[in-house]
Amino acid sequence: MTLPLTRPPRRPLAITLGDPCGIGPEIVLKAFVAGLPAPAVVVGDIGLLRREAQRLRLPVSIEPIASPAALRARPPGLPGTPELPGLAGIPGLPVMPVLATTALPADLPQGRVDARAGDAAYRYVCRAAELALRGEVRGIVTAPLAKESMNLAGHVWPGHTELLAHLAGDVPVRMMLANPELRTVLVTIHLALREALQAITQDRVLETLRITHESLRRMGIDAPRIAVAGVNPHAGEGGLFGREEIEILAPAIATARAAGIDAQGPFPPDTVFMRARGFAHFDVVVAQYHDQGLIPVKYLGVDDGVNVTLGLPFVRTSPDHGTAFDIAGRTDPHGLGLADPASLLAACRQAHALAVD
Amino acid sequence: MTLPLTRPPRRPLAITLGDPCGIGPEIVLKAFVAGLPAPAVVVGDIGLLRREAQRLRLPVSIEPIASPAALRARPPGLPGTPELPGLAGIPGLPVMPVLATTALPADLPQGRVDARAGDAAYRYVCRAAELALRGEVRGIVTAPLAKESMNLAGHVWPGHTELLAHLAGDVPVRMMLANPELRTVLVTIHLALREALQAITQDRVLETLRITHESLRRMGIDAPRIAVAGVNPHAGEGGLFGREEIEILAPAIATARAAGIDAQGPFPPDTVFMRARGFAHFDVVVAQYHDQGLIPVKYLGVDDGVNVTLGLPFVRTSPDHGTAFDIAGRTDPHGLGLADPASLLAACRQAHALAVD
Repeated sequence: MTLPLTRPPRRPLAITLGDPCGIGPEIVLKAFVAGLPAPAVVVGDIGLLRREAQRLRLPVSIEPIASPAALRARPPGLPGTPELPGLAGIPGLPVMPVLATTALPADLPQGRVDARAGDAAYRYVCRAAELALRGEVRGIVTAPLAKESMNLAGHVWPGHTELLAHLAGDVPVRMMLANPELRTVLVTIHLALREALQAITQDRVLETLRITHESLRRMGIDAPRIAVAGVNPHAGEGGLFGREEIEILAPAIATARAAGIDAQGPFPPDTVFMRARGFAHFDVVVAQYHDQGLIPVKYLGVDDGVNVTLGLPFVRTSPDHGTAFDIAGRTDPHGLGLADPASLLAACRQAHALAVD
Repeated sequence: MTLPLTRPPRRPLAITLGDPCGIGPEIVLKAFVAGLPAPAVVVGDIGLLRREAQRLRLPVSIEPIASPAALRARPPGLPGTPELPGLAGIPGLPVMPVLATTALPADLPQGRVDARAGDAAYRYVCRAAELALRGEVRGIVTAPLAKESMNLAGHVWPGHTELLAHLAGDVPVRMMLANPELRTVLVTIHLALREALQAITQDRVLETLRITHESLRRMGIDAPRIAVAGVNPHAGEGGLFGREEIEILAPAIATARAAGIDAQGPFPPDTVFMRARGFAHFDVVVAQYHDQGLIPVKYLGVDDGVNVTLGLPFVRTSPDHGTAFDIAGRTDPHGLGLADPASLLAACRQAHALAVD
């Protein structure tokens, strides 16, 4: 029996596997078992996923596909699921469609930096970005990669965000971290703190405010209230502890306000995140450097946290944790993997909410 | 009737009034009304306190004393309270003994930077430090001051901590922020972030680890577990984003460990505070700069937060909020002041717990 389709099937999301030696494969498998909020294809390695599913005894039917479009066309005479009409799997099991992009050796060690893994992780991102740019997927969700492994393989990018910005045509992007009570957007990201201070310029802050304003409007917030964190203790306390607030941040905020953007500040960094909790006073905090924004977003835990790249021509989200090499490949006394798919599932929900069909 | 004394009365704590134009006077009065955990004298301005008590209709008996010792000797024939035998006040009201240090004009504007206020705040700290160094008080609790006002009065100190270190003979001190779920100690404090990065040296980190270790031991933690936060995103990720972790932090940690200090790290700054919550893995996090340590401590609110100066020859605590000029002198529709004494009371409890009789 085939089910009637009430509307054309959605384009799927693409989920990249991340670093094959990290917890990416485990959390992607667990997310399919738990149930995704929307159809998705995995850009990854079919052999590795099957070995990992077997190791963790995860009940999921891992099936190769040639392209995302193949999911939407039902081959005559074949069974399928309403959301994935072009794909049949093992009856009773959730189906994971995989765009096989690599064929990694079975003896790849888990929990370690490895150039082969870094190269694979890089290829998954490139393939997913290509699909998104061509409109074959609705958006992409990326499992964590290890920058050291990727760099070891000769792909020198500080992180997903910078690589995706390049793949999309070197567009200006910003990283947003969000959890159910706080959103922060970063002016600078993966730079030594010393270099981040050099990179905080009026233009860069203003561009951050513009991207933040436009992105939050696209997310349905009509007039986003943007708090800007200072650079220095007490936001410089009138110039006593640094002049970035006076010379860079205040002028950028004034220019943004003149353009109709509700930017406020600069505020003392140590209390602005507390004040922004629960969105009572602000919809988002613009933070000047990586840890200033990430410490408060992660403080209560990373399970609900989502990373959203603002400014790309497609939707991209990711969990806000890393490869967790320390628990990759490990199991508890019952043989269950230690990694938690909660943040990846939150990233899938966020991508689903942000992306058009 | 006089009550029998079962032990000699305690030396009191000293509470400084802080900036007279900030919320200091209001929270000190409210703390006495709410009930202090231990006898205390206020180093402040008796006229200002009486005017403020009247404005806010706070029922407290404000009484001048000549010295902390006067509180402990019961003059013959005079009534007194068991904890403050040398002082009688208005019957039925809590008694606030004041070491009158200034006589400020009645028209001093609240909520504003003012050199007269800055000078007064400075004098309160000097007087309290003198009493503590002489052993006349058990420890000191300082209400917030405004650095701009103090500097305007010609007393150029970035904050209480540095001034107290100087008054105690230029001893090395560190600021610890503590709330019921997290403690952090700062390697650098009131410096522009750019200058803080210059000030993070092996010697300074090692000194921080030593002071932290010894202070926590004195607080009753036998083998304090100290986490050290990195300087850079991802703790430098193996040198990709900065070399402070490799060249400064790791050697300082190794030296500390060789000396029997349980220092661990450097850890990625964005997750180390989350991991330290609730003291499950660490007793304290050593943070490299002001906002790195204060953002997480303040994120859940400042009411329970206490600032403790480590390394001084006496106990010193303070609330972890500022002068709050925006609410100083303001009342709600019922005529009640807006400032909350919770953090000051927490600081008094902490000082009481740390100080010997």
